[in-house]
Amino acid sequence: MAERIDQNLRGKWSPDEGALPLHALKWLGGRIGLRPQRTPAAPGSTLEVPASALSEAAAEALGAIVGVGHVRLDRASRLGHAGGLSYVDLVRHRAGGELTAPDAVVLPASPDQVVSVLALCAEHDVAVVPFGGGTSVVGGVAALRGDKAAVVALDLGRLDRLVSVDPVSRVAVLQAGVTAPEAERLLEPHGLTVGHVPQSYERATIGGFAATRSAGQASSGYGRFEDMVEGVRVATPAGEWVLGAAPASAAGPDLKQLVVGSEGAFGVITEVSLRVRPRPAVERYEGFVVDGWETGQAVVRALAQARVLADVTRLSDEDETEVSLALAGGVKSAAVRAYLKARGVRRPCLLVLGWHGGSSREVLARRAASLRLVRGAVRLGTAMGEAWRHGRFNGPRQRDVLLDVGVCVETLETATHWARLSELRTAVRGALGDALGKAVVMCHVSHAYETGASLYFTVLTPRDAHDPVGQWKVAKAAASEAIAGLGTISHHHAVGVDHAPYLEAEIGGLGVEVLAAVKRALDPTGVLNPGKLIPSERFRG
Amino acid sequence: MAERIDQNLRGKWSPDEGALPLHALKWLGGRIGLRPQRTPAAPGSTLEVPASALSEAAAEALGAIVGVGHVRLDRASRLGHAGGLSYVDLVRHRAGGELTAPDAVVLPASPDQVVSVLALCAEHDVAVVPFGGGTSVVGGVAALRGDKAAVVALDLGRLDRLVSVDPVSRVAVLQAGVTAPEAERLLEPHGLTVGHVPQSYERATIGGFAATRSAGQASSGYGRFEDMVEGVRVATPAGEWVLGAAPASAAGPDLKQLVVGSEGAFGVITEVSLRVRPRPAVERYEGFVVDGWETGQAVVRALAQARVLADVTRLSDEDETEVSLALAGGVKSAAVRAYLKARGVRRPCLLVLGWHGGSSREVLARRAASLRLVRGAVRLGTAMGEAWRHGRFNGPRQRDVLLDVGVCVETLETATHWARLSELRTAVRGALGDALGKAVVMCHVSHAYETGASLYFTVLTPRDAHDPVGQWKVAKAAASEAIAGLGTISHHHAVGVDHAPYLEAEIGGLGVEVLAAVKRALDPTGVLNPGKLIPSERFRG
Repeated sequence: MAERIDQNLRGKWSPDEGALPLHALKWLGGRIGLRPQRTPAAPGSTLEVPASALSEAAAEALGAIVGVGHVRLDRASRLGHAGGLSYVDLVRHRAGGELTAPDAVVLPASPDQVVSVLALCAEHDVAVVPFGGGTSVVGGVAALRGDKAAVVALDLGRLDRLVSVDPVSRVAVLQAGVTAPEAERLLEPHGLTVGHVPQSYERATIGGFAATRSAGQASSGYGRFEDMVEGVRVATPAGEWVLGAAPASAAGPDLKQLVVGSEGAFGVITEVSLRVRPRPAVERYEGFVVDGWETGQAVVRALAQARVLADVTRLSDEDETEVSLALAGGVKSAAVRAYLKARGVRRPCLLVLGWHGGSSREVLARRAASLRLVRGAVRLGTAMGEAWRHGRFNGPRQRDVLLDVGVCVETLETATHWARLSELRTAVRGALGDALGKAVVMCHVSHAYETGASLYFTVLTPRDAHDPVGQWKVAKAAASEAIAGLGTISHHHAVGVDHAPYLEAEIGGLGVEVLAAVKRALDPTGVLNPGKLIPSERFRG
Repeated sequence: MAERIDQNLRGKWSPDEGALPLHALKWLGGRIGLRPQRTPAAPGSTLEVPASALSEAAAEALGAIVGVGHVRLDRASRLGHAGGLSYVDLVRHRAGGELTAPDAVVLPASPDQVVSVLALCAEHDVAVVPFGGGTSVVGGVAALRGDKAAVVALDLGRLDRLVSVDPVSRVAVLQAGVTAPEAERLLEPHGLTVGHVPQSYERATIGGFAATRSAGQASSGYGRFEDMVEGVRVATPAGEWVLGAAPASAAGPDLKQLVVGSEGAFGVITEVSLRVRPRPAVERYEGFVVDGWETGQAVVRALAQARVLADVTRLSDEDETEVSLALAGGVKSAAVRAYLKARGVRRPCLLVLGWHGGSSREVLARRAASLRLVRGAVRLGTAMGEAWRHGRFNGPRQRDVLLDVGVCVETLETATHWARLSELRTAVRGALGDALGKAVVMCHVSHAYETGASLYFTVLTPRDAHDPVGQWKVAKAAASEAIAGLGTISHHHAVGVDHAPYLEAEIGGLGVEVLAAVKRALDPTGVLNPGKLIPSERFRG
């Protein structure tokens, strides 16, 4: 727990693993015309945090609920909860100067305490930002107070228990503050796994996954997080709300699916009942190369529509594959290129497939079913697959290194139906390229469905030294406008602040009205996460 | 279309197929102590329909929208839309006397006309009951006017088009009034299928499936209806609402799942985008017998948790199996009994498994994967499986015959997690037995999930000649109270009027508040399906 807080305070990932090799940086410099510059993280001491606006009365009353030591007003705690991990968040931390931070960090120890805290915050006109792993990349944990007198970060780190396990039904109840690795550690003695592995795995929490409709790298096999949610316990200013009587129901609309994705705007998820599975005894990851994006997406579509997707199914486009090969290094990269050239592959696209199972026999049978549809691909074997698996959580660390040398690096994602997938990819690449000039725009499909797939873009471009935030905001707006009408504004990053302006185009004016009406029913004074998900002016009605 | 209306007017199913054989009736008479009595349906002429309360101004304005011939005030049309197909509905029709009927039947021809009709009804204080196939068994289409001056049935039969097909994404857009067989007929030239086959298949509609969160007999393979819904077009008094930008999204809560299951209380679903699949080239159904309910449910659980369920997976308990054998007839039944006895099966439970696929090879591979987990079962071969398939829509017809001879016959259903499944079954059987005395209570599992399953009960008991409605209401209340706290009040029949009193125990007071808030946002004056889903007093707030 102490470690968790400390991680949040550092505001970055442990840099000792997964750093970028020098040859990769050199390659990138040539590709985007980067003039290497050392711009390491500014020392925390250069950041300014305004005085806390939390009234003494409110602080005292909060302390009476959660314990005096669990209402933190110190500078380090507030800075550690001053935002998420988007590029803009990180750039602001590096730039120094004043930072928007919560007026206090409150650490409740139980679902009941969360209910009490919310009632008290409503009474004292204090906004509440629920805070799990703090890994939002869309402003979901920004310390916005809206029209409230003060704002507190509600850190759920003390809700760290496995509440119950039902091994017959394969349902586990986990508290919201349990991180993904902790969940796996808690379930291991029961032989069970959640199987949810997004890139934020090391820090993100069960509550955060539910609040943001998370999807993980193995979601093709284990399902999106919402597919795993059997029930929720939610604290709201109007009281506690518990859902989840059965695995499926026709007792009205599925209200669980209204809580999942509510991003702390309707309530604070305190416990989640999850469908869990036996821990896989065998995992096998393999690399393949197909010739060109269109071929690759047709292969993934065939796998999805025949319902023989690997548990991990990930297709990189030509640019992402080129970067992967560059990362792998000169000699290795050259050998692979030569191997592919000899096999007539002109536009290599890397396809990683990973199968999990209870036995080698099961994994090999599922692999055989998949591979019948992976026609014409060059097999790179398990070494390439394992290399991907080994490095799959390194993105955030590599980003820290790229930020150090002056690169603007950010990701964005969307999803659409198969018939429009290539059109959407072209539109987003074009928008980013036009907005940024010399840039590498990489793309991969990491989540496939019978009717469509996600697209995940990674952008690398030299950072504008004068206005790094403005530079990215222009590019992000261009990409978002390209997405609107062709796909969803977010497949798994959620809405937060960044996507809120685009939500109405996707769910309609009535959709926003419905969200606002639900919020008014559960959070009548609007203390919960103001400015996230629903524009504040729409909430006021 | 004319035929559809005509079917509704008949108020019962075509009796020429699937009628009960005489030996089955004799067996039943002995089992429940029935004194056979001929009580055929009362002639329609004995039913009284009150004068229409629809104002001339409203009727004229409605006619201006949908065409004069499509506002029907005649007795036959109103009677044909006077309710659904629950036992109580049928008994009321048979009893004669006054019947609650809509003041008119309105037949719009397009989604735009539905929007206009709703605006007009809000203006003229007219309640609207959306009407598809009219097969609700929970009072979902009862002609309730709430506090409105009049009530019309909004028959969606003219919204009968396949709007579009996207063969690449495998998405089809169907209008709400398309019946299940019509949907299959429209998709056949494209080589596609919806694959949704509830017992109401012959009459129920796409819009009705969505509005009630329907599940079909092949939902283990094709998914529940909500799993197929990619998007919805909804007419509301506040305007039109369109959802469905992508196959999956993290752009806030999944509002589609708020529309699916909204039972006409939030809006009228006019079009549904559905994930469709290739029509199976091969279907194979087989019968098995396992020894005892506990063994059977453990087998189904193993199939579900290993994710090798057959597309149709259906387990009957001892009593339902006994009735199935009795239905099969004396000689056949005796032969099967002897065969099972010779194999040591003391408490036969019938298990029907059906696999669909693109080829025999695919079907046999999936069958082999399933059968590895169906240990110790006696195989009855494909004849028994095909017999089940052949008769699978006969339930409603057989019910008509049973009603004719004085039997009280009704079904109810629920679902829960595996660990509580047997407890729930015992509790419901006990409650029904205590309430009804000499009765046959049969049960089957027709829908299985990794974490739990549905339970579907069929009850047969001699009808109380003096108070048949009261007799069933007492039994239904006892069963519903037994379900509350152990499972969901409905797995696929929806809430309607009958389950509304039990909804709050399942979704909480806050759940009902949320539903009411959504209704207020979309239907501010409350014209849509008053008294269904949300108790009227909760809507008024």
